[in-house]
Amino acid sequence: MRLPLILVALLAESHAADNGLAQIPPRGWLGWTTFRCQVRCDFDPENCIREELFMQTADAMASEGWVQAGYTYLNLDDCWQAMERDAAGNLQPDPDRFPSGMKHLADYLHARGLLLGVYTDYGTKTCMGRPGSYGHEVADASQFAAWGVDSLKMDGCSKPSNASYDVGFPAMAAALNATGRPVLFSCSWPDYKRTGTGPGSLDQVNFTALRDACNIWRIYNDIQDSWWHVLDITRFWGEQQSVLAPAAGPGGFNDPDALIVGQNSLGVSGMKLQMSLWVTLAAPLLIGADLRSLSSDAKAVLQNPEVLRVADDRLGKQGVQVDNQTAGLSIWRRELEGGELAVLLMNTLPSHANTHDPTANAAYTFINNNGP
Amino acid sequence: MRLPLILVALLAESHAADNGLAQIPPRGWLGWTTFRCQVRCDFDPENCIREELFMQTADAMASEGWVQAGYTYLNLDDCWQAMERDAAGNLQPDPDRFPSGMKHLADYLHARGLLLGVYTDYGTKTCMGRPGSYGHEVADASQFAAWGVDSLKMDGCSKPSNASYDVGFPAMAAALNATGRPVLFSCSWPDYKRTGTGPGSLDQVNFTALRDACNIWRIYNDIQDSWWHVLDITRFWGEQQSVLAPAAGPGGFNDPDALIVGQNSLGVSGMKLQMSLWVTLAAPLLIGADLRSLSSDAKAVLQNPEVLRVADDRLGKQGVQVDNQTAGLSIWRRELEGGELAVLLMNTLPSHANTHDPTANAAYTFINNNGP
Repeated sequence: MRLPLILVALLAESHAADNGLAQIPPRGWLGWTTFRCQVRCDFDPENCIREELFMQTADAMASEGWVQAGYTYLNLDDCWQAMERDAAGNLQPDPDRFPSGMKHLADYLHARGLLLGVYTDYGTKTCMGRPGSYGHEVADASQFAAWGVDSLKMDGCSKPSNASYDVGFPAMAAALNATGRPVLFSCSWPDYKRTGTGPGSLDQVNFTALRDACNIWRIYNDIQDSWWHVLDITRFWGEQQSVLAPAAGPGGFNDPDALIVGQNSLGVSGMKLQMSLWVTLAAPLLIGADLRSLSSDAKAVLQNPEVLRVADDRLGKQGVQVDNQTAGLSIWRRELEGGELAVLLMNTLPSHANTHDPTANAAYTFINNNGP
Repeated sequence: MRLPLILVALLAESHAADNGLAQIPPRGWLGWTTFRCQVRCDFDPENCIREELFMQTADAMASEGWVQAGYTYLNLDDCWQAMERDAAGNLQPDPDRFPSGMKHLADYLHARGLLLGVYTDYGTKTCMGRPGSYGHEVADASQFAAWGVDSLKMDGCSKPSNASYDVGFPAMAAALNATGRPVLFSCSWPDYKRTGTGPGSLDQVNFTALRDACNIWRIYNDIQDSWWHVLDITRFWGEQQSVLAPAAGPGGFNDPDALIVGQNSLGVSGMKLQMSLWVTLAAPLLIGADLRSLSSDAKAVLQNPEVLRVADDRLGKQGVQVDNQTAGLSIWRRELEGGELAVLLMNTLPSHANTHDPTANAAYTFINNNGP
């Protein structure tokens, strides 16, 4: 009943980013929702963006079962960079906060079974005002590869008025491919082509081009540490699924942004809900919480083997909402290998929208041919 | 969150058969799928249509928990009658097979907490050639009421060419109401108005008139003791749900025919599947098996309290299929009181179509606001 895995891989290669990566949605860590652009290390040394933060996170990921659970990407977001390129025009990390340099950080991660992700921007400046990659695509890609970078997120701020996202993102993809190093490419491209939050808002997105260039792509607003954001993303994903679901598959996946599980807003049930929904959507699982001090509840949700079994499914099909006729209650399905369905029952009733709600439901049930 | 029960009852009274019955789908026994028109008592005395069969079944229903589980209707189908009316023109039971008479049988059942159902036909003859009620509606209704009958199934064979079902069924409903005795009215009417088995085949059915006259109504082909029939009914109910579901509610329900649970064709999983599907459809639960020798597996399925809790739901909403995109796997939902959903996951893969299949799935899961 199961498709040979090699066949899945071959099919995927023909219509997704040409690096062989992300055959299933990638898993790892991306701390933006917790750490953002906190660079004042004198003020809060434990939580500022500097190499210690990432090395301590790497230690936690290696020792607390994250690598074994498939969470292998450790991603930096904006603000790792110095405010200016160096004299030769190369990107450089902030020298005070990354005194050991990026190659050292990559080595540190690789020694622990982890992969390093960094961040840049399509335009002239990043969203936080650091140097963007516009006009430097080939040089920056080479720089990243030389450091041993394994993943690149490219944002979309500060677009020159005469430039086009539709040129710039494929240009970076080509530059990354030309390095010969497989670098997972995370593109904010479609989020910048999106027009509003309602029906038709993705009409400008060329998903074929997206799959040709990118492994994962951000579609919608930044998530923040709030239940409302989970609900709003849930709504948008349900409304847009006829457009989104066909675009996902081995090699390329829609990205609803990070998991806020383990941050402050969600109780255990809310954590289960976000985790199960993201897995149903075949979404990248990028943890935003501080893994150095994660609650045991959050860890149990994020490392739940039954849920990760769905995340590991090699069909890579994005699940869809099949029922939302009863307010607050919805049913989602994701088709798995071997004719199995993972069915997600979700309760998002307004009464559960409060912080640390202990009662909301999110439960997987499976239908398969292996018996009850 | 819950609708006051009295309000439900009042709403129902305004648009269903005017006898106050079937506020939830009725439950009981209707042995046609097992005993049919077997009237050769010399040949097979234990299994022929005669008063002993029904009295023994009544004993089993009273002693084996069926009455307590809400299975209160004990229904005769065709062939209880003598081949001719009596000299005065009254319907009469076969004197050899019902020597104690119908009033005695009704009393026997009532003493055990059961209700008696009988069978007649709209036309000049029943489907098995016994006298039909055409032109005798008022007299037959009075006769049934005098015997203490609690439920009447009216079939549709032998329609006179100049007659109309659309007149005859409401006429019998009026005759029953005029007796003053509440008699649950089961109408085969729409099954005789149906044209084929595909889309549009129910276009000739006037569901408003149906609800005005009848408490339950047969829609589709007779079920037989086979897995294929369960699948075919499943298909039809899914395809026609936009027509069928709005017609169901307290006082009146679509009837997909009897449960074959406990007969020969279904294994435990198949039993669970039919039972759960029928309950999801807010269908009458009329057991066709021989209750004098039922397997413990079948009894456990038919008396499963979790499933009967759904059957007891007083909203009386017929559930619908919300997903059938994966061959053999489907998802159904039934909305319950208090904003709860009963979600049925069904596996009907072809590989499970064999007899006594132990692997097919049919599982209820609930989403509600009472926590995981």
